Amino acid sequence: MVETTLSTPSLKDNTADTDRLLNALKRELGLTHIRADLGLIKALPQQLREAEYAVRCVLFQEGRDRGVLVHVTACASEEILAGLAVDLGTTRVVLRLVDLARQMVLAETSFDNPQIAIGPDVLGRVHHADQPGGLDHLQELIVNGLNHHLAALCRAHGLKPQAIHLVTVAGNTTMSHLLAGLPVHWMIREPYIPAANHFGLIPAAQIGLAVHPLAQLMIFPNVGSYFGGDLIAGILYTGLHQREETAILVDVGTNAEVVLGNRDWLMACAGAAGPALEGGMSRMGAMAAPGVIDRVRIDQVTGRFELHTIEALPPRGICGSGVIDLAAQLFLAGMIDIRGKLKPKACGPRLEVIDGLAQLTIVPADQAAEGRPLRISQADLDSLVRSKAAMYTILETITMNMGLTLEELPAFLVAGTFGCFIDPRSAITIGMLPDLPLARFLPMGNTSLGGATQALLDRRAPAEAEAIRDRITYMELNVNQEFMNRFSAAKFIPHTDARRFPSVGR
Amino acid sequence: MVETTLSTPSLKDNTADTDRLLNALKRELGLTHIRADLGLIKALPQQLREAEYAVRCVLFQEGRDRGVLVHVTACASEEILAGLAVDLGTTRVVLRLVDLARQMVLAETSFDNPQIAIGPDVLGRVHHADQPGGLDHLQELIVNGLNHHLAALCRAHGLKPQAIHLVTVAGNTTMSHLLAGLPVHWMIREPYIPAANHFGLIPAAQIGLAVHPLAQLMIFPNVGSYFGGDLIAGILYTGLHQREETAILVDVGTNAEVVLGNRDWLMACAGAAGPALEGGMSRMGAMAAPGVIDRVRIDQVTGRFELHTIEALPPRGICGSGVIDLAAQLFLAGMIDIRGKLKPKACGPRLEVIDGLAQLTIVPADQAAEGRPLRISQADLDSLVRSKAAMYTILETITMNMGLTLEELPAFLVAGTFGCFIDPRSAITIGMLPDLPLARFLPMGNTSLGGATQALLDRRAPAEAEAIRDRITYMELNVNQEFMNRFSAAKFIPHTDARRFPSVGR
Repeated sequence: MVETTLSTPSLKDNTADTDRLLNALKRELGLTHIRADLGLIKALPQQLREAEYAVRCVLFQEGRDRGVLVHVTACASEEILAGLAVDLGTTRVVLRLVDLARQMVLAETSFDNPQIAIGPDVLGRVHHADQPGGLDHLQELIVNGLNHHLAALCRAHGLKPQAIHLVTVAGNTTMSHLLAGLPVHWMIREPYIPAANHFGLIPAAQIGLAVHPLAQLMIFPNVGSYFGGDLIAGILYTGLHQREETAILVDVGTNAEVVLGNRDWLMACAGAAGPALEGGMSRMGAMAAPGVIDRVRIDQVTGRFELHTIEALPPRGICGSGVIDLAAQLFLAGMIDIRGKLKPKACGPRLEVIDGLAQLTIVPADQAAEGRPLRISQADLDSLVRSKAAMYTILETITMNMGLTLEELPAFLVAGTFGCFIDPRSAITIGMLPDLPLARFLPMGNTSLGGATQALLDRRAPAEAEAIRDRITYMELNVNQEFMNRFSAAKFIPHTDARRFPSVGR
Repeated sequence: MVETTLSTPSLKDNTADTDRLLNALKRELGLTHIRADLGLIKALPQQLREAEYAVRCVLFQEGRDRGVLVHVTACASEEILAGLAVDLGTTRVVLRLVDLARQMVLAETSFDNPQIAIGPDVLGRVHHADQPGGLDHLQELIVNGLNHHLAALCRAHGLKPQAIHLVTVAGNTTMSHLLAGLPVHWMIREPYIPAANHFGLIPAAQIGLAVHPLAQLMIFPNVGSYFGGDLIAGILYTGLHQREETAILVDVGTNAEVVLGNRDWLMACAGAAGPALEGGMSRMGAMAAPGVIDRVRIDQVTGRFELHTIEALPPRGICGSGVIDLAAQLFLAGMIDIRGKLKPKACGPRLEVIDGLAQLTIVPADQAAEGRPLRISQADLDSLVRSKAAMYTILETITMNMGLTLEELPAFLVAGTFGCFIDPRSAITIGMLPDLPLARFLPMGNTSLGGATQALLDRRAPAEAEAIRDRITYMELNVNQEFMNRFSAAKFIPHTDARRFPSVGR
């Protein structure tokens, strides 16, 4: 968003309306080239005269020296100029509505990625995309989902979706491709080539987003099939790429994604972690929202569960940070063993076998928001243990590969899903993060959404995202015997080698 | 058009398909940025693999270091990659179909600008554009006209309009605006501000051109409301801006447009000249086409008319160069006087009064292609005299303003309408051009179309057109008493001051 007052035309300065405006913006912003859609140019002569040549412009920068002019309104106008930041997860999608002029968040919402109906994970969707019409269908699902939830969000906040002029999306490479309707066939086949690393700016209308007809869509660039724009957005948001000291960014999602580096170098690595930590775990899993459990304590004497829900409303699910807390507390209360298995005696009447599966009641039906008990099953816990083991092994592997040890790292930037700040103490207890002084862990919340928001508000951000992308070295995980040994050793709580976790008492 | 063979993807080089191609093109062409439509990117993964990574690309450069990728095909493909150059005149529109790979002209055609139905001149159309729906109507007329004649041209040459990936248009500022659907309201009102000097690249589909759906349209930039892209294209084509010696470019159209300059400076001037010289004169006027009279000689002894028609077919009209020849020959044969008035005695039975107007039969009905006589009226001749006087006065004025005389100029680059090379000898005889050695006159044909063609074939041309535009100083014609005196003096054949035209014998 930029405001400018133009010199008025005269016989001595007969520069055309469009050129007058673009030249002024170029000077103001230090850009060499600005383009604008014909539809915008068409309205400009009337608009400039009505605004008496004092205008507020929404502009999106492409690279360091180029831009696209997206919207023009009179400085005197009360019109709200909005942007939409999207964290496009495989499991959950988070929307954040931003006031571009006042640089503030207007509203947020989240919803399950509607493509889950096709397949819960990336692979199922990629296979579906190979079917005739499959790719279009997947694109339609996510675009309709975005439009539907955006419309509701706007309605609730008295805003028209047409007030949105910029949309920024941070998602993994597959989700980004499916949103743009790009083929994903070769992404899962050696040598794993995406259709695009950069998407350029896309007219939002071209993919069917129901925002302003001239709005532009920026999808964060990716490094490859297994390192997506969500992580680039995360690096941008956390500033890992500008730090003097080496730090590590840990993104806890469906994939365990890790970036190690500083202002000089950036090394990245990712591996499948499963949905346990992304609110996709069992029927109880959820994204942060009012009523969702985000903190859990179990009184080790009475065995009483103390649950904290967002906005202190009756519980309706549990988010990533809640799950990690729950597992840590179950372990500390002796209700699960070092393999993560539920211990019948310690669990007592909370433990039931339903549909042949051991299930632990976290919230009884009469206390739950929806009148159904919230339960965690043995399968959920097994999945969580695999996830945390994958994360720990990847952390171990990437630091080893750089000739470092986890202990040497001065800062762990811990990304989490929207609104869920992971408690490092709990993450250490279950052995997901190494046993280091707590001050080294910096919970960052939803860094993808943070990066997407930054790209809306800071016009240098898209070029910075670009520069980050170009600097990343992606380390292919070599899943050899040695890796598998490390992974097996990490599949205990906190670890088979208890000396690594001295702070975790029994 | 550029061909490139890409390195094939591997685990060691997992660059995405789009980025692989764009990076290669950037290297090859020395560009810093290339954008591509999502529709093109969508097809790319399949295309690159089928082409075994050897592709032929149609690319359009924006400025010196940026480009838009428009089309990709396999090097092995036989597909014709075509471009369309358009000379968008107020009176006539000329289309030239070009093979981009073989760099050759495939076909040409021309038609009357369908907006003539609204008004024969710019002013009538600008007023119509102010009516509700008027601007859309004018745009629709020209776009439909282009589509209709292009389809016919393609059909005749066994080509699909979808084979056209680039369209370049050179037109005056009003015609350019009406094609783009941009408002012209303020162009004719002081201080005469166009909506745009630069149009950027426009997706051809956005204005409804029935060519390839991803084709791009480049409209030549203008300097102001009265100095259009047609003349910029003319300068580009004639190379006036690169000449060491000062020369003058004379464009004979509805407007008498003149550019004086060299590689260091460019000064331009334009004034209304009327349609007499642009094939818009009476019912007989035509653009060059088979059967159109382009050369006229009158035997001064026998009074016999010797008419040359294009392709020596039966005559069906007369083009600009034919009109100038005709007037000169009528004058030399004593059939018109120094005011351009038909002399009954000398004209003999060829002269009739029809509908109260003196008319001279040039081709009797039995010799004419369409069975109707071709005639020139006194009104046509009056109009021609005004046109030639305007041209001469403007030439005189601009050189005077630069402290030069017409006699000093070493080169007159004479642009004409498509296919019509004006005979300088005849132009001197009627006093349209100054009486200088014939070797100084360089007939250039349709320079607008030439420039538009160059923009299709030479990827540096659009940036060059840009640079030309930025260098031009536009001289506002000060139509004061002194100018009117010069104009009145030029309204005789060749001039009131016969000493200026010593070579024109009586």
